Amino acid sequence: VGASSDPTSLANRNFTKPPIDLGYHGKIYPIGYTGGEIFGLKIYPSLGEVPGPVDHVICSIPAEATPQLMRECVAKGVKVVHIFSSGFSETGKEEGLQLEQELVGIAREGGIRIIGPNCIGIYCPSWGMAFAGSITRESGRVGYFSQSGGNSRELTDMALVRGIRFSKVISFGNAADLDEVDYLEYFSQDKETEIIAIYIEGAKRGREFLSLLKETTPRKPVVIVKGGGTDAGERAVSFHTGALAGSDKVWDALCRQTGAVRAYSMEEMADLILAFSLKPPIPGVRAGIVSLGGGAGVQATDDCERAGLLVPQFPTEIQRELRKAIPQAGTSVSNPLDSSPFVAWDPPQFLETIRIVAACDQIDLVIVHIPVDLGFYRSSGPKAVMGQVKAAVKASETCDKPIALVLRASGSRQSSNVVLEAERECQRAGVPIYPSVSHAASAIAKGTQYYRSRRD
Amino acid sequence: VGASSDPTSLANRNFTKPPIDLGYHGKIYPIGYTGGEIFGLKIYPSLGEVPGPVDHVICSIPAEATPQLMRECVAKGVKVVHIFSSGFSETGKEEGLQLEQELVGIAREGGIRIIGPNCIGIYCPSWGMAFAGSITRESGRVGYFSQSGGNSRELTDMALVRGIRFSKVISFGNAADLDEVDYLEYFSQDKETEIIAIYIEGAKRGREFLSLLKETTPRKPVVIVKGGGTDAGERAVSFHTGALAGSDKVWDALCRQTGAVRAYSMEEMADLILAFSLKPPIPGVRAGIVSLGGGAGVQATDDCERAGLLVPQFPTEIQRELRKAIPQAGTSVSNPLDSSPFVAWDPPQFLETIRIVAACDQIDLVIVHIPVDLGFYRSSGPKAVMGQVKAAVKASETCDKPIALVLRASGSRQSSNVVLEAERECQRAGVPIYPSVSHAASAIAKGTQYYRSRRD
Repeated sequence: VGASSDPTSLANRNFTKPPIDLGYHGKIYPIGYTGGEIFGLKIYPSLGEVPGPVDHVICSIPAEATPQLMRECVAKGVKVVHIFSSGFSETGKEEGLQLEQELVGIAREGGIRIIGPNCIGIYCPSWGMAFAGSITRESGRVGYFSQSGGNSRELTDMALVRGIRFSKVISFGNAADLDEVDYLEYFSQDKETEIIAIYIEGAKRGREFLSLLKETTPRKPVVIVKGGGTDAGERAVSFHTGALAGSDKVWDALCRQTGAVRAYSMEEMADLILAFSLKPPIPGVRAGIVSLGGGAGVQATDDCERAGLLVPQFPTEIQRELRKAIPQAGTSVSNPLDSSPFVAWDPPQFLETIRIVAACDQIDLVIVHIPVDLGFYRSSGPKAVMGQVKAAVKASETCDKPIALVLRASGSRQSSNVVLEAERECQRAGVPIYPSVSHAASAIAKGTQYYRSRRD
Repeated sequence: VGASSDPTSLANRNFTKPPIDLGYHGKIYPIGYTGGEIFGLKIYPSLGEVPGPVDHVICSIPAEATPQLMRECVAKGVKVVHIFSSGFSETGKEEGLQLEQELVGIAREGGIRIIGPNCIGIYCPSWGMAFAGSITRESGRVGYFSQSGGNSRELTDMALVRGIRFSKVISFGNAADLDEVDYLEYFSQDKETEIIAIYIEGAKRGREFLSLLKETTPRKPVVIVKGGGTDAGERAVSFHTGALAGSDKVWDALCRQTGAVRAYSMEEMADLILAFSLKPPIPGVRAGIVSLGGGAGVQATDDCERAGLLVPQFPTEIQRELRKAIPQAGTSVSNPLDSSPFVAWDPPQFLETIRIVAACDQIDLVIVHIPVDLGFYRSSGPKAVMGQVKAAVKASETCDKPIALVLRASGSRQSSNVVLEAERECQRAGVPIYPSVSHAASAIAKGTQYYRSRRD
């Protein structure tokens, strides 16, 4: 509702086009007072005039007009209304709050559930629902609900590039009706969802949220970014979704008590989702590092230890085997392993090196650290780097320890292109790629904490 | 020395070609027993046979052969020898150590200074020296010396993409002769150098290094990444450059006592260099945030406060002015400012918004936060984002507060391309770009600490 014959309008770009592009599994009825056509579909002047039944309504009209629409939805037998419109309780003004309450009143009486208001709704690839164009149809095992529309898009965009796929993403805004407890309950039971990610600014039903979290985390890892943890952030929240934010300490305690994992940015959320995607689940904190260059290895080791991973020395027999695989002088066969350029850029040798490290029983996981731009100093350039990536993927397929890749790139066009190519290669194999050892190590260390507390 | 007629050899790729590409300001004599030609230059079979005087020798031959070469250098009147070769004290073996001492003995007796061994030497764009191909000729104000060749390349590559330019970069490896004190002394006095960056694994002359740092920091900011601060990292260092690493605590104390700024990764080093490039120097910690989207603003505020910046509310008169510039509902005119899409993607309005925030006397600096991929949901796509970037650059030219840009990008090809275009735009204007608010805020907060301690 709010469609028009202008294909560039906000409502059409955000809501009419994406489900068409994604192959929505039901019927789509654009509704707008202009009438006419859009993307080959007839525009109905009102909801009442739509011929068949309507389950789900997306509302993109001014706030003042929403109560009238809600009444029409009741009359039509609609089940769920997603309200994109803003201008409700988040304004902090009395009129906005009253309008929101009026809306909820009509919906409850008519047996309708509300998503929002002030949110962008649902992305469900398997059903062909989306809040954005050019988004993948591939479904995955991450369920994500976010109180911010921008942050739901930000994590989705970033995660898709990094090979993460979603079961469903829900942006839920002011949570006037359906709230954090309802969404958590859904994802907790949803068979498609194995990992749950949450961006939340404030809980409406704190106690129930806590007990449901406690019940969920033994089965599925839950990662939470809490917006407005600081004082000024809390003030910012009051202008955004109008939620009562609650301090950082409260949310730390909540995560500790429930076994949820706290992240501090969308980027860290993606890092953690990748850590929870590692196969097999990370058994412990002892990392074997396969690196290239002494300085990079030193830095990688510091990053691991600062994040809470251990970098134990390799036993003598492993060092002896490695020395056979890496006969060149000037390299270290201890942990971190400084594989020489001759080894790193020779895929079979690099594969063999990773295998030897992975087979070491002092090691729980392997971090393969690839400095992308260094590869460019070699005549074979990007090919040399992709050879390393493919060797690491191959190693992950044949060994029983989780392998995480780190691709350090300068951000130049050439390096960014190689990273994207590597992402595609690794996504197929389910091997995570991190932009730095420090990102990888922090996420993996938090991941092991989760598994440990689950075992306890 | 170590050149051959094979253009793909390591010595030629690393050392013969780069200065030719960069327009070296003197004569280049490739030397190698093969004779013949390389890149149009005659290869001399030995140093003695070079017709003119030789100031600087780059040595890329096996370690065992270096003492003989050093004697030839003495005979030829060479001033400096940069030894790329490894196989010296960093091996941890007695033979390696003895070879290094022999080399230093010959050099000292003959009045020669050594850079290295086990390092890639000098990048000096103004003189046309380089350790890598496809590197810019543009000179800058950052002097960088690094005990790791890989890390000297990594920071250089990454920093160049981010608009940072160098006076000189020196990779100095084992520091057998010239060491951290010599290089710091040089950069401390070098007129081209205004900011000093250091990657160090262990100090040979700790006391002198400390007192020289103390003397330098009141005039030039010094940023230090210490490799091997953790226990396992220290062990890794012993395999790399053979340095005695020293613990994290010792280096924390050193930085506190001397006013040097400590960073923990190459990326943070680049972040800090950009913070010290802000014009005018950051006067205080009160940040005004211009963002797009409520959730992004909330996150930006949390990131700032966690890093030690403040996000004070705007006074009523500023809010009133902003409300005039941003009449649309659903946006916040408090700090963080949630500029609506209508404002953000309209360059003159966006410029006006930044100007109003910058003029607020409760604010020391402005952080302009641009979610890149959000711009793509608009039909004008990349153009909308570049409009924001250009408005921010224009604002920085006309207002007297430092402005830092944050470009949040998913890493998709389209978003990476826009970031690169923005980097070029901003480099010309000297406006720094950060990949996240948390990167920007940490670097700026550390920067203000430096300026505060300098004032005290």
